[in-house]
Amino acid sequence: MKTTNARNLIALLLVWALALTSPAVQAADPLPSWNDGQTKQSIVAFVKRVSTPGGKDFVPKSERIATFDNDGTLWAEQPMYFQLLFSIDRVKALAPLHPEWKDTEPFASLLKGDVKGALAGGAKSLAEILMATHAGMTSEEFDAIVKDWIATARHPITKRPYTEMVYQPMLELLTYLRANGFKTFIVSGGGIDFMRPWTEKVYGIPPEQVVGSSIKLNFEFRDGKPVLVRLPEVNFVDDNAGKPVGIQQYIGRRPIAAFGNSDGDQQMLEWTMAGSGARFALLVHHTDGEREFVYDRQSLIGHLDKALDEAQAKGWTIVDMKNDWKTIYPPRH
Amino acid sequence: MKTTNARNLIALLLVWALALTSPAVQAADPLPSWNDGQTKQSIVAFVKRVSTPGGKDFVPKSERIATFDNDGTLWAEQPMYFQLLFSIDRVKALAPLHPEWKDTEPFASLLKGDVKGALAGGAKSLAEILMATHAGMTSEEFDAIVKDWIATARHPITKRPYTEMVYQPMLELLTYLRANGFKTFIVSGGGIDFMRPWTEKVYGIPPEQVVGSSIKLNFEFRDGKPVLVRLPEVNFVDDNAGKPVGIQQYIGRRPIAAFGNSDGDQQMLEWTMAGSGARFALLVHHTDGEREFVYDRQSLIGHLDKALDEAQAKGWTIVDMKNDWKTIYPPRH
Repeated sequence: MKTTNARNLIALLLVWALALTSPAVQAADPLPSWNDGQTKQSIVAFVKRVSTPGGKDFVPKSERIATFDNDGTLWAEQPMYFQLLFSIDRVKALAPLHPEWKDTEPFASLLKGDVKGALAGGAKSLAEILMATHAGMTSEEFDAIVKDWIATARHPITKRPYTEMVYQPMLELLTYLRANGFKTFIVSGGGIDFMRPWTEKVYGIPPEQVVGSSIKLNFEFRDGKPVLVRLPEVNFVDDNAGKPVGIQQYIGRRPIAAFGNSDGDQQMLEWTMAGSGARFALLVHHTDGEREFVYDRQSLIGHLDKALDEAQAKGWTIVDMKNDWKTIYPPRH
Repeated sequence: MKTTNARNLIALLLVWALALTSPAVQAADPLPSWNDGQTKQSIVAFVKRVSTPGGKDFVPKSERIATFDNDGTLWAEQPMYFQLLFSIDRVKALAPLHPEWKDTEPFASLLKGDVKGALAGGAKSLAEILMATHAGMTSEEFDAIVKDWIATARHPITKRPYTEMVYQPMLELLTYLRANGFKTFIVSGGGIDFMRPWTEKVYGIPPEQVVGSSIKLNFEFRDGKPVLVRLPEVNFVDDNAGKPVGIQQYIGRRPIAAFGNSDGDQQMLEWTMAGSGARFALLVHHTDGEREFVYDRQSLIGHLDKALDEAQAKGWTIVDMKNDWKTIYPPRH
């Protein structure tokens, strides 16, 4: 009996040791929401090339940097950027403290529900709305405001929480890349402090791996306690040519893989592809009007024109959402 | 025989399994270059408090952020900041391309070996030297210049490579913190792109965990290839009140432990200590004139005056280099 028990125990330990090291464990499809086909194959082939020890395209783990745009790449961005919807909600919430807004544009139109009218003033109106809702408080106060909004607000069309309008196939892709030694970063035109309060929970991407646009901060003491006050002054715009600049300033390494969906991501993809060794660039093309939204060259939000031409000319991977993705959003909670 | 072999194997596996999980393995002193005493005890006690599961001061791993100043905290900074010595070497190397420097200050004095004369013009002269040597090339070119210098240059007094003028006790501290789930960052007044080429190899801190001062970058195409060109324009000064700002912009979380050595670190330590829960602040006090350098309140480089008063008043940990450290530098290669 003793011998048998010992043998059983050894067998068990061996099975367990094998299970920990065997590739068979990883054989389950890591991208179940992606339909089989060229798009999925291009992702898997790239990951295998750079992560296979001894392969000619092997990349050390420390250099496996992958950068993701957020709006339209990791979560939806229609009918307008969610951060703009946040700003509108904030204008309404703050209106009682600002009686003058009733007669001042762009706030007056916004408060009447006329978003188009409010934004008729272009960049100047947008900047006024953003600064009125993003500056003037401490960094901790803004963090609490964003956390409260993201937990309670609902998308105007789907009525889902915004954090449930993330793309299930992209969540799987993030997990798959990290399981293969990649460090995943967000590099978004969106506000860095608008994303950080929830990206770790939703995407598994911690605050220190989020790069985005920012306003200036001032260190000062209030009631004897140090605070960082958010100033109504642009610090950095992380879009278009700003994306490779943001990558260099914040990350300090060139990514080997980059993921975007609009012309705002074109320079990030160009910068990524211009490095040596194996490289990967992917554009999410919004082609699914039934399950999500259809838009590209004519859209103001998520404008995709020149980057689409370049992707086609250079053979970058283009996700056809309608045909490449089995599901769009995660199951509802 | 079979039974005995099986028993031996099981015993071996058990010992091995225990070794992986037992605290006994960690009983070897993780800070061998620190003399026993209050300073070392304060470090070890803090790390135990925040990393003991179930303890009242336990901090989840993701929030165990530790930030380190570089000059005077992780490596030496006398007779002047090493980045300034780099700049002087670069002025000499570039002089043949700039015949006009022979008659133009601050370059003329520098080329004659008169550093004091060159810096007599104050911040303006310093900025001219920095921009002439740090801007005008691509980010990749600058990276190569720094890597070449750091591999070949020698300290004027010790004749050691600069990367061997790092503090052995601080290297042990970095390793000890990381072994206990901390993520270690540099937050330095020094140039971010001057540090990143070598911090991973020397400190185990990857480029994306280095925060520092920076100049602006411009994304453009040269010969059809995208490059980032370093512009002679300040982007961010990561010193004094800039340190908490840099922490928020780059890391997005408040550290629970911060390490510095001068008044330039005071606000970083204040910001760190003002958070809730267990906190740790440490100042390296340069008290060892035999093995290193003695300086504090009267020194221009590494000026330590107000921060020393605050550390004493608030009971922050102060390293007395002469008495707390068994060795200063790592063994010579």
